[in-house]
Amino acid sequence: MIKPWPCVQSQSGQSFRVFSIRTDTAVSPRTGVEHDFYVIESQDWVNIIPLTTDHRVVMIRQYRHGSRKVTLEIPGGLVDSGDTPEGAAVRELLEETGYHAEEVAEIGVSNPNPAIFNNRCYTFLARNVMKGRDPMPDQTEDIEVVLVPLMDIPELIREGKIDHAIVISAFCWFFLRDQKGVIKP
Amino acid sequence: MIKPWPCVQSQSGQSFRVFSIRTDTAVSPRTGVEHDFYVIESQDWVNIIPLTTDHRVVMIRQYRHGSRKVTLEIPGGLVDSGDTPEGAAVRELLEETGYHAEEVAEIGVSNPNPAIFNNRCYTFLARNVMKGRDPMPDQTEDIEVVLVPLMDIPELIREGKIDHAIVISAFCWFFLRDQKGVIKP
Repeated sequence: MIKPWPCVQSQSGQSFRVFSIRTDTAVSPRTGVEHDFYVIESQDWVNIIPLTTDHRVVMIRQYRHGSRKVTLEIPGGLVDSGDTPEGAAVRELLEETGYHAEEVAEIGVSNPNPAIFNNRCYTFLARNVMKGRDPMPDQTEDIEVVLVPLMDIPELIREGKIDHAIVISAFCWFFLRDQKGVIKP
Repeated sequence: MIKPWPCVQSQSGQSFRVFSIRTDTAVSPRTGVEHDFYVIESQDWVNIIPLTTDHRVVMIRQYRHGSRKVTLEIPGGLVDSGDTPEGAAVRELLEETGYHAEEVAEIGVSNPNPAIFNNRCYTFLARNVMKGRDPMPDQTEDIEVVLVPLMDIPELIREGKIDHAIVISAFCWFFLRDQKGVIKP
């Protein structure tokens, strides 16, 4: 059985706006030796699969500064303090696309990479979303809203046109949910 | 059409062993205003779905310092300089589990989160893996090897027992590959 490593010291480090770096000193339960580990601390993240009544996914194209590329994604963002994951998902959907969600269900929760991240990403599904107003992206976002037929999503993932790991995870939960009993490895 | 943001300055920052932080100053093509963005730079990552001849996935349990939890994952790690993604995947499989892979196929490539990461994660599928020797985890790894029936994977993802986003993405590609024509959203 794998045991937790007791953490004997934890030190907050530099902040980089949407994340900060913590240094933990932990003791191996197997060897008794101390090691330092760097952890990326962040608020929780959310994303949301918004489906229209005619089976299209409300997606966004935006320029991403990590990859220096334009990506095809579902709406998402940070859970602000005082907000719930569901509230944040509905807010991000509205701000980024102008669509309103009424029926929202949580379909999965991940850690982006538990080796280095301390946070969770919550994924929601919203059916029957409706365009309510124009998007209101913030100063650092240039967003194009695109309606993608749901039946095209598997091929877009296979081809690498959707390549954001957190977005692929979201669709994996969706496929597993809606295809229960159909996916038979 | 969404345009790239010209990057007018890029400054390497502090290193945290497996990643470092870069600061980019980029100009919005929409507003002409400069903004700073923090980018997590890392070598590329790999992971691998190792399947035995009797349809089990060679998985590992390990303590993760980001989430401070024991996770259930597939083998994976960093692509060392001079190594190929495929070479790194085969090496990590052998080091972490003692299993040899001969037939290896790339089934997908993601960016862990293109908003903040500059790197890629390559996922491989290895069929007919064979136990060759004992695992050789490094000093900072305590690893338990577990053979999980492939047919149990969808339920483990649904229940959140597999909750590492990069691992879920890997299985998503696998399901889409092997179920081509079966997943009909």
